[in-house]
Amino acid sequence: MSETADRSGTADRSESCENRARTLDAADELAEFRELFALPEGITYLDGNSLGALPRSVPGRLQEVAAHEWGELLIRSWDESGWWTAPERIGDLIAPVVGAAPGQIVVGDSTSVNVFKALVGAVRLVSQDDDLSRDEILVDATTFPTDGYIAESAARMTGRTLRPVRPEEVRDALGPRTACVLLNHVDYRSGRLHDLPGLTAAIHDAGALAVWDLCHSAGALPVGLDEHGVDLAVGCTYKYLNGGPGSPAYLYVAARHQDRFDSPLPGWTGHANPFGMTPDFTPADGATRGRVGTPDILSMLALEASLEVWGGVAIDSVRAKSLALTDFFVECVERYVPEGRVELVTPRAHGERGSQIALRCPDAGDVMRELIKRGVIGDFRHPDVLRFGFTPLYVGFGDVERAARVLAEVL
Amino acid sequence: MSETADRSGTADRSESCENRARTLDAADELAEFRELFALPEGITYLDGNSLGALPRSVPGRLQEVAAHEWGELLIRSWDESGWWTAPERIGDLIAPVVGAAPGQIVVGDSTSVNVFKALVGAVRLVSQDDDLSRDEILVDATTFPTDGYIAESAARMTGRTLRPVRPEEVRDALGPRTACVLLNHVDYRSGRLHDLPGLTAAIHDAGALAVWDLCHSAGALPVGLDEHGVDLAVGCTYKYLNGGPGSPAYLYVAARHQDRFDSPLPGWTGHANPFGMTPDFTPADGATRGRVGTPDILSMLALEASLEVWGGVAIDSVRAKSLALTDFFVECVERYVPEGRVELVTPRAHGERGSQIALRCPDAGDVMRELIKRGVIGDFRHPDVLRFGFTPLYVGFGDVERAARVLAEVL
Repeated sequence: MSETADRSGTADRSESCENRARTLDAADELAEFRELFALPEGITYLDGNSLGALPRSVPGRLQEVAAHEWGELLIRSWDESGWWTAPERIGDLIAPVVGAAPGQIVVGDSTSVNVFKALVGAVRLVSQDDDLSRDEILVDATTFPTDGYIAESAARMTGRTLRPVRPEEVRDALGPRTACVLLNHVDYRSGRLHDLPGLTAAIHDAGALAVWDLCHSAGALPVGLDEHGVDLAVGCTYKYLNGGPGSPAYLYVAARHQDRFDSPLPGWTGHANPFGMTPDFTPADGATRGRVGTPDILSMLALEASLEVWGGVAIDSVRAKSLALTDFFVECVERYVPEGRVELVTPRAHGERGSQIALRCPDAGDVMRELIKRGVIGDFRHPDVLRFGFTPLYVGFGDVERAARVLAEVL
Repeated sequence: MSETADRSGTADRSESCENRARTLDAADELAEFRELFALPEGITYLDGNSLGALPRSVPGRLQEVAAHEWGELLIRSWDESGWWTAPERIGDLIAPVVGAAPGQIVVGDSTSVNVFKALVGAVRLVSQDDDLSRDEILVDATTFPTDGYIAESAARMTGRTLRPVRPEEVRDALGPRTACVLLNHVDYRSGRLHDLPGLTAAIHDAGALAVWDLCHSAGALPVGLDEHGVDLAVGCTYKYLNGGPGSPAYLYVAARHQDRFDSPLPGWTGHANPFGMTPDFTPADGATRGRVGTPDILSMLALEASLEVWGGVAIDSVRAKSLALTDFFVECVERYVPEGRVELVTPRAHGERGSQIALRCPDAGDVMRELIKRGVIGDFRHPDVLRFGFTPLYVGFGDVERAARVLAEVL
């Protein structure tokens, strides 16, 4: 690679990567979790940071929901099968994975819709509609684009101004005009992990609220929402949480803000008495206030089944394996790939790395197409980035070695 | 019933309801469609206006999507399995059912979220953000509550005033201050069908835009969105369209408005070049502009499978059977139920009736619980309404007779 490396922590360079992979796999405490996933033969799947693999429990559960709960119990399943309370129940399954006490996360809608709820909600928590003294919303200028697009709409509709700033510029940009800040815990392109505790504290020092997007961190590393005093957060469930393509997203509203959380999408299922069918909206208590329309049950219960794997997992073990996998991938790439052919985009420092490795190379689009043909699935981000995601629950060190070896062959 | 009836169209009263049901079932052109649905033995299901029954094609399709498209093809399915284009493709399956040419309907999100898009979009089509001369949004005061709650938010966030009016007062309330009007095609409680062509024309005469909620009409009767010049419309897919519990809703934006439709939820999948990942939002052409986040594939493809039944169905036949079913239910109730015990809430005139019959009785909650115990499933709406929905594709006249008979026994 063209970036000079800090070699500390890298193993004895005389041992082959194949041998190292065998040793690491043999010592892998999470190895048994791979059996919980249905991974196709002959494929090395390193795109779980985009779409997580299928947990084996899901197809059977989907059958039960469709054939029995929908087909036979019909409308009665809203009560008898627990459909109505699924958004909060599944939120409480996600809560320990992101360091939240129960009752603060509700599942439903897409990440984009939840970004809208969270940002408008944050602006309204900070000041009244007619008090525009805090007139700026800061957003990560390098964000996954939808967050920026939705933030622009939230700013427009609350009479605020959107100010894009690079994460390293956030501290200097904060001030008495800041209403709230929307940041990504891990950058979707580079895999850089941002300083959630430090930035949240700085935002609070400025009297503003912190809204975090956890799409690329939840399920891959500890988040600590409660511990670090995050105000609001959103995330998808189809990456490291393996909920399925486009599975419902979630919204976290810290307990201390729930009473005053004022959603811009006050749908009937977020009402204190939804079946009262009253003309005035009275928001429900707790996380339920973040609900909007009728929950999307098939996708939601598939997600619930997919979250079963987390019952026996400590997120710290996941993080340790994630760092070992990404360290090892960098090591194998450095051994196999000719110097200068790719550039490491992801930071080497553990404290700045999520669970993916991004490599820049000028012909990245063609390279990724060829990799996929050879059974190594990562993805390509315009214009020149190869992304490889490492989901600790089902990726092994042998996968890592193979991916680096095939990459070198292609290059 | 306590309401005096117009008996025209009612059959020879000397013939028993059982015999009439047999004759009507024998002549039913849509009878064969019942086989396309998995209905449980011993149940008379008259709640398809709340949750449609399970089409037999759905469980197998869900298995294929989960096990093969997600489990084996993984991320590649976004292209190879047509996941990415599902929202527009499924929109085009719904289009003929509601009288829309292709390219104007996109599937996704909940009805509530689509009401927000449609109303804010309508306000912005009528006038610029800073032109408040059309400062009123009219909403049906008897609407399903979520429409009113979301309309209130749309008004607040666009600087307009929400004015609830009863449907019969809409014409008088229209004027130069009206920006747009949100109406239900069929009232969820009474089953009353509103005059979509006439009201749309009156709204246009006032220079305003018409937004229709089709939740309780789509799939039960002709809507004629294009023919009657409707501007925007929304609807759910889990009632007469049988898409499954909480299945994705849809948004219709008439072709003539698409170029200027300015969504308050400009998510990345509604971008002209979503994978360009550019910081500025450039809206896509056509119905795609109404998309927000990543489409919820499991629910969406279950919906697509459920819509297969519509390939061989003319909506006029559905409407004819719907009216025959509801006429016959009223007739049987009048024969079986003691005079004065229930009151017919739904209009008798065909032109004012959807596909449900609502009966008022003081102990409706207890009555419905007992009906369900005896295998007749309708539902209860606070405080005193029994609702019975008639889905022409799977409800027969024998079901209708049985429901009325069991209702009389309970009463």
